[in-house]
Amino acid sequence: MKTILKNVIENNRDITKFGQVATYIPELAKGNRDALGACIFDTSCNSILEGDYETKFTIQSVSKVVTLICALIDNGKEAVFSKVGNEPSADPFNSLLKLEIQENHKPLNPFINAGAIVCTSLVSGDNGIEKFSRIHNMIKKLSNNDDIDVNYSVYNSEKLTGNTNRAIAYYLKGANIIEKDVEDILDTYFKSCSIEVLVEDIAKVASVIANNGVAPWSNERLIPEEVNRIVKAIMTTCGLYDTSGTFSVNVGVPAKSGVGGCIMAVVPNRMGIAVVGPALDKHGNSIGGVKVMEGLSRELNLSIF
Amino acid sequence: MKTILKNVIENNRDITKFGQVATYIPELAKGNRDALGACIFDTSCNSILEGDYETKFTIQSVSKVVTLICALIDNGKEAVFSKVGNEPSADPFNSLLKLEIQENHKPLNPFINAGAIVCTSLVSGDNGIEKFSRIHNMIKKLSNNDDIDVNYSVYNSEKLTGNTNRAIAYYLKGANIIEKDVEDILDTYFKSCSIEVLVEDIAKVASVIANNGVAPWSNERLIPEEVNRIVKAIMTTCGLYDTSGTFSVNVGVPAKSGVGGCIMAVVPNRMGIAVVGPALDKHGNSIGGVKVMEGLSRELNLSIF
Amino acid sequence: MKTILKNVIENNRDITKFGQVATYIPELAKGNRDALGACIFDTSCNSILEGDYETKFTIQSVSKVVTLICALIDNGKEAVFSKVGNEPSADPFNSLLKLEIQENHKPLNPFINAGAIVCTSLVSGDNGIEKFSRIHNMIKKLSNNDDIDVNYSVYNSEKLTGNTNRAIAYYLKGANIIEKDVEDILDTYFKSCSIEVLVEDIAKVASVIANNGVAPWSNERLIPEEVNRIVKAIMTTCGLYDTSGTFSVNVGVPAKSGVGGCIMAVVPNRMGIAVVGPALDKHGNSIGGVKVMEGLSRELNLSIF
Amino acid sequence: MKTILKNVIENNRDITKFGQVATYIPELAKGNRDALGACIFDTSCNSILEGDYETKFTIQSVSKVVTLICALIDNGKEAVFSKVGNEPSADPFNSLLKLEIQENHKPLNPFINAGAIVCTSLVSGDNGIEKFSRIHNMIKKLSNNDDIDVNYSVYNSEKLTGNTNRAIAYYLKGANIIEKDVEDILDTYFKSCSIEVLVEDIAKVASVIANNGVAPWSNERLIPEEVNRIVKAIMTTCGLYDTSGTFSVNVGVPAKSGVGGCIMAVVPNRMGIAVVGPALDKHGNSIGGVKVMEGLSRELNLSIF
Repeated sequence: MKTILKNVIENNRDITKFGQVATYIPELAKGNRDALGACIFDTSCNSILEGDYETKFTIQSVSKVVTLICALIDNGKEAVFSKVGNEPSADPFNSLLKLEIQENHKPLNPFINAGAIVCTSLVSGDNGIEKFSRIHNMIKKLSNNDDIDVNYSVYNSEKLTGNTNRAIAYYLKGANIIEKDVEDILDTYFKSCSIEVLVEDIAKVASVIANNGVAPWSNERLIPEEVNRIVKAIMTTCGLYDTSGTFSVNVGVPAKSGVGGCIMAVVPNRMGIAVVGPALDKHGNSIGGVKVMEGLSRELNLSIF
Repeated sequence: MKTILKNVIENNRDITKFGQVATYIPELAKGNRDALGACIFDTSCNSILEGDYETKFTIQSVSKVVTLICALIDNGKEAVFSKVGNEPSADPFNSLLKLEIQENHKPLNPFINAGAIVCTSLVSGDNGIEKFSRIHNMIKKLSNNDDIDVNYSVYNSEKLTGNTNRAIAYYLKGANIIEKDVEDILDTYFKSCSIEVLVEDIAKVASVIANNGVAPWSNERLIPEEVNRIVKAIMTTCGLYDTSGTFSVNVGVPAKSGVGGCIMAVVPNRMGIAVVGPALDKHGNSIGGVKVMEGLSRELNLSIF
Repeated sequence: MKTILKNVIENNRDITKFGQVATYIPELAKGNRDALGACIFDTSCNSILEGDYETKFTIQSVSKVVTLICALIDNGKEAVFSKVGNEPSADPFNSLLKLEIQENHKPLNPFINAGAIVCTSLVSGDNGIEKFSRIHNMIKKLSNNDDIDVNYSVYNSEKLTGNTNRAIAYYLKGANIIEKDVEDILDTYFKSCSIEVLVEDIAKVASVIANNGVAPWSNERLIPEEVNRIVKAIMTTCGLYDTSGTFSVNVGVPAKSGVGGCIMAVVPNRMGIAVVGPALDKHGNSIGGVKVMEGLSRELNLSIF
Repeated sequence: MKTILKNVIENNRDITKFGQVATYIPELAKGNRDALGACIFDTSCNSILEGDYETKFTIQSVSKVVTLICALIDNGKEAVFSKVGNEPSADPFNSLLKLEIQENHKPLNPFINAGAIVCTSLVSGDNGIEKFSRIHNMIKKLSNNDDIDVNYSVYNSEKLTGNTNRAIAYYLKGANIIEKDVEDILDTYFKSCSIEVLVEDIAKVASVIANNGVAPWSNERLIPEEVNRIVKAIMTTCGLYDTSGTFSVNVGVPAKSGVGGCIMAVVPNRMGIAVVGPALDKHGNSIGGVKVMEGLSRELNLSIF
């Protein structure tokens, strides 16, 4: 399996030069466009690391999975889905268009920015500090790594330039979908996106979801079974922005991408996978990461379909 | 399992009165709003029939699965997906809106009307008669039933009132997505939608897909493995119009609904299920059928997630 | 005034090379991209011709004004505006998008294709031949020219390639906005667009509207006063597709453009103007024609504002 | 003329009960739904007051005319129209939809909220206090009334509940259409909307525009001629939200409505008119005010078309 992973990475290195590092957040523009690395962490705790697995990156939208887990645990399914849908969107990730033409102003799903902002507002905590602490602790537990922290340069950069997200949040406030202080919620949202990790951390998070919510290293249940099932379903239908359907056809596993260049993938009962490659395609997904996942799915027969 | 199926049906009978029989095709308006029946056909060829399983119905959009299978076999994956996408739509099933704002005018996926019309145009055959014959033969083989035929009253009704589909087809012709005679393609499309069946027929179709493309009754491969995998993926992300995501969360199996009141569901490696209940919810799905599937998923632990 | 017109034309000749002749109708692609000519016909029957005033062209969307006049005379204001609105559209001229998201499926105004197709269906006549005859006779009277006729090469070209208009018409039929035979209505619509004229013909049509509906050459009332007022209002708000507002600011007179390269402009109580220049800007308006109108408005102080 | 005005008002009193006072700003909900009053101020300084002309109201969107005048004077036509278009919108006044699908993110015109926020950002002044002072002074001069001031209850109410406008402003900031401090610009915008007046004040503002920019009472030029012409053009095509075209057909004069219940109308070279009636139709226009304007246009032959 190590050889397969190595070959798949090396065979797809060239494609990274057709992608672009995210530039709308200035700090992200400093990402290494050529990097491509991955980790497979299976449910027996074997860890395979290949390529540029030492590349540090911020999780960006991959945090939306963790935030959704917290929101579902803290509020229950009914409360969460009364404020955010679970339908895929055919629109780009930061679109306000869909937000508005839904009859009830409810964001389509938890993995577009609007939906993640709603989930952030639902996480337990009286204020932004407590909410972020809840999300931060959850990712530490899911990755079995207490040292995970925010990259404050990225966070400051997001906060400074996050006016489209600010627009979304005020729109949701105006539509009574979120009720608390907008800047406080956005602060938590920006911090969650700016958490800095390695592929092994994210592969471990994925391995917990692959293992039905139980940490492979401790047999501790970290995610309730129903929450875990919901999260896998939404990752399948909405995980890769407006290419989720194509990813289901070509790869066929629950996954979530982020503009930091990470793709986190869950192979039920078998393994968690994380790929990092900061060069993005025009949809905002790691251009090399998608190819690596297609290769692994073919070679290791990963599709759930 | 027979008792479970019976109970789930009886427990959800009442909800049918909150639904409406499709009226935009006059012949469909004659459907029995109160009917609710189902069939489970497992991969060992056991057939369980409960409720109003003798209700005849036209397959309507369930035909889109058969048409997609033919299009993929006849043209290959690349050719099909160069003319139709595989992304879920958050818009209603007969929407022209999405059609237009896609940059390349390509319909979003094979299960919205526009996409199914494109797939129909791709099915082998020099004219509408040959194309329909191809689709007709495929459903006969997938259901192991040579007597399946078109309900010509419904077909004539669809043809007479199908102006929105006609609009879609001419739009696609104007955008060079379909090239052949529009009325010929529409004729095939309307005939495919008007095929009349029983739940057992459709449960058998689903059992072939559940059995990775091999007919459980003959061990004959009817669908190539890759095509079968693609079809399951698209059923999961796009099968229930603009509630596909919610169905994935609440039921979690590949499925396809039709406005004739049928839901066809595939439980990989285990069984095919078909439910019929002509009373529809506002999204165009059988209101009772969705509830029956939710009940069965819970009781029989069907979710793939 | 002759010198002014000549200078304005010559000063704007160069800009025609930045435009493109319409290509979506193959016959239109044969238009002379470099041509630029104009006619001013005042309410005292003085005619000034300058530039390439001998260029023949098809009226295309300028016919929508004549069709609207017929529809209003034949049905009255209430009947017409129950089926078509009079609101400007910010969308391109052949857009289906707006058509659909209006709650009542009513086309926004009589000068987008959808609205003109509705007006065509409302013109008196039991069939397409009678309807076209009505429109044909009206333009002959408004231009005081009995020899005006259809360019049948253009007409055949439009008919062959008019699938987007066919889509619009079937959509309207599906929404019960038009009730009669779609192909019959489209035939009339394509013929109306394919009427071939010279700038002097169209300047005369405009002079009747400028003269409050009375032909300057005969003092005969050709358009009822209220109809004439409505037509001027809609030309002002909707006459130049999605640049009507900008034209109001920069020129400030009721006008209508067509993809054949003509702009017809009405200077109330003073004159009718027609410019022809087949090179179009990206909005579908004559690129030279718009500039000529801006120049004339400035030099002759034409704005009604 | 006094009798005509009186009759038109009395004949339309009943319709006010079919309208609703604006409720999205709590302070506006206190408006008197039954009130209906008007003032005609002609270019010879005759003032006719009828009905509930003593009703105080906040100008709301009527302020957008004053803000546009200031922006045009302070920056010139080119600079203003590089950041805001002048095309009518077929969408409601507070829509974000159009904002986004314009290729360049430029608001469609200065009279939708997005466009007015851009114009506010362009008014001279180093900060919100200076900008508002500029707008405040302009309306004092245009109404010849130094006592005009902000209703601070309404202002505070707008500020508290203005999250949709906040969303618009942050969206524009994210798209680099506005550059300065968002809260500062919004503060000026909310204050401008909250200016409290009587119909006579607004009829005087309109009379200046009717008089080509020159104050009838002092013969002082208050608005440059070109700016005045542009403002009349945009009032004609965009003045009544998504019913501007219908108003052009039925009334036919440049006008601007506000959700405080005012319609300001300009009859070129003859008079300014202001009507107040806080009961609004579903488009946000005074339901009685529109009817009064239709009646006056008919009786006094006001249409410019």
